[in-house]
Amino acid sequence: MFENKETTKLSSYGEFGLIDLLTKNVKPRRSSTLKGIGDDAAVLDLTAGKTVVTTDMLVEGVHFDIMFTPLKHLGYKSIVVNLSDVFAMNAMPSQVTVSIAVSSRYTVDALEELYAGMLMACEQYNVDLVGGDTTSSMSGLMISVTAIGMAAEKDIVYRNGAKNRHLLCVSGDLGGAYMGLQVLEREKAVFKENPEIQPDLSGYDYVVERQLKPEARKDVAEMLKDLQIQPTAMIDVSDGLASEVIHICKQSKVGCKLFEERIPVDHNTNKACEEFNLNPSSAALNGGEDYELLFTVKPEDYEKIKGHTEIYPIGHITDVEGRYELIPPNGESVELTAQGWNAFGNQE
Amino acid sequence: MFENKETTKLSSYGEFGLIDLLTKNVKPRRSSTLKGIGDDAAVLDLTAGKTVVTTDMLVEGVHFDIMFTPLKHLGYKSIVVNLSDVFAMNAMPSQVTVSIAVSSRYTVDALEELYAGMLMACEQYNVDLVGGDTTSSMSGLMISVTAIGMAAEKDIVYRNGAKNRHLLCVSGDLGGAYMGLQVLEREKAVFKENPEIQPDLSGYDYVVERQLKPEARKDVAEMLKDLQIQPTAMIDVSDGLASEVIHICKQSKVGCKLFEERIPVDHNTNKACEEFNLNPSSAALNGGEDYELLFTVKPEDYEKIKGHTEIYPIGHITDVEGRYELIPPNGESVELTAQGWNAFGNQE
Repeated sequence: MFENKETTKLSSYGEFGLIDLLTKNVKPRRSSTLKGIGDDAAVLDLTAGKTVVTTDMLVEGVHFDIMFTPLKHLGYKSIVVNLSDVFAMNAMPSQVTVSIAVSSRYTVDALEELYAGMLMACEQYNVDLVGGDTTSSMSGLMISVTAIGMAAEKDIVYRNGAKNRHLLCVSGDLGGAYMGLQVLEREKAVFKENPEIQPDLSGYDYVVERQLKPEARKDVAEMLKDLQIQPTAMIDVSDGLASEVIHICKQSKVGCKLFEERIPVDHNTNKACEEFNLNPSSAALNGGEDYELLFTVKPEDYEKIKGHTEIYPIGHITDVEGRYELIPPNGESVELTAQGWNAFGNQE
Repeated sequence: MFENKETTKLSSYGEFGLIDLLTKNVKPRRSSTLKGIGDDAAVLDLTAGKTVVTTDMLVEGVHFDIMFTPLKHLGYKSIVVNLSDVFAMNAMPSQVTVSIAVSSRYTVDALEELYAGMLMACEQYNVDLVGGDTTSSMSGLMISVTAIGMAAEKDIVYRNGAKNRHLLCVSGDLGGAYMGLQVLEREKAVFKENPEIQPDLSGYDYVVERQLKPEARKDVAEMLKDLQIQPTAMIDVSDGLASEVIHICKQSKVGCKLFEERIPVDHNTNKACEEFNLNPSSAALNGGEDYELLFTVKPEDYEKIKGHTEIYPIGHITDVEGRYELIPPNGESVELTAQGWNAFGNQE
């Protein structure tokens, strides 16, 4: 009872024992899950509509810093970022698979924390964990998640349907996750300098939570349905607003005008930007990881969203293919460029 | 035109540029692929039957040694091992997603080789690559593949349907992949000792190919259908025959008798075993990575498979739950134990 669980080594479990341990609380809740974990493959009934499939990998030292990322949060986030891609198709997620590769530096208890976070996200978003793989790595932790979702074919929204004069809208405020990361990095540096100074995150709850425990916008599809709006293009904001706007424009073969002062930024994010001497628009445009939805709607839908508290029109589409304009408060258009996060950018 | 392509660094490509480059030759060939790579998620029509989903991760230094694994072969194998799980459900694969995490040690050209192998497997098995993720890693290469397949519900074979007196059968010879690994490890050791001695693999083609470029048994489902046999349980042999037999028995709540001299071993494998002073049955029972299918059939199907050149009966199921017997040529039963490969076993 008082055994030191912290020291339970991975090597004391076989691969199958570990999988059993980590997935013992997994119970399928969706009727479309005919067989979950425990065979060569999961068996699903995906005949109710069209299926969407997406996959994302999170790598220690690249996508997360284990020094300031609680494993439960990391597990939660690893599911959420994948579900966000399903919502960005205007679909509803139903199942996920999870593969992890982990070094012997991690204890069994650490992995249980990670899985607890994943299962919490599965519960929150009503999806089933139906399979996966658990293996060792030479260094660090890698998490690969595949998410499956369903939608009626007519409801699915691609990136390529934006047309001239369509309005660019975003579902919530941006830049917070990036500023959360800045705060966490700063406290880490302070701590490394002097380990006796405890990290102080008070007053930064909002931005830190945006970074460590983001939510995916499962409510947007219903919100739009209630407003009788079918988006013409949609993407989730994972790499920064600028990058996502350009993705939609490129695939739709159009241009855009984005109005800087229209970009929604929370006052907590503004405050953090001030402290770090950063431009809030830059945090929103280039920061990423906000997991809001960016979408375009037809001009005639403007009346429906005017004054809506959770849909922010931030610009519009133009017919000048390849011309992406950012309009600062002074009105003088500058070119919008994607300086979003590049997984390979920092390597030499 | 004569630029040194070998030195093309990953950092010279953005993430999206790299994805574009690696997937430029990807063209969906299945009618169930409505939208492949290029949006937040792929869109599939999986309404023709039930869907099976499986995922596997390959990690450098754990699952493969880049010193003797050509990247094209590795790409091919990474797809094949996942398809093998789909075939083990008696289903037909239709789509895969691929995520890779890769260190800056790898060149763009190396990744192109890897993808060439993956796409070759996709072509060979008539599946579509419909999505994925490409990111950097702190060290080495990780490949995570998810495979999707379809089957009529009545055709799907689980691991838990084996009953007393059912025959245990395997689709081909075992132990070859393990002996191929032994040969490759030996040549690596020789090379490290004296880099002037070139590795000599001549005469070991069969076992080396079983290790480096395995095939999944897509033909078995049809073969069994032609014989009018519905297997009662099925699994693919990835961790060694002993481990897989025990999986079927555990999930079916039965026991088994496995006859050692019935285990099919190719003469090339036998020859290599002799050279390495290893017992061929041990290579088959504990080696793994053969990707043959292990399945059980009803006793009345025996007449249909008797003398079949590609279905080997190797034992039968008993009603003594938890008792797994291996019968050596001398007839004295010993306990069958799973000494199969454990991803965490070598760690401290």
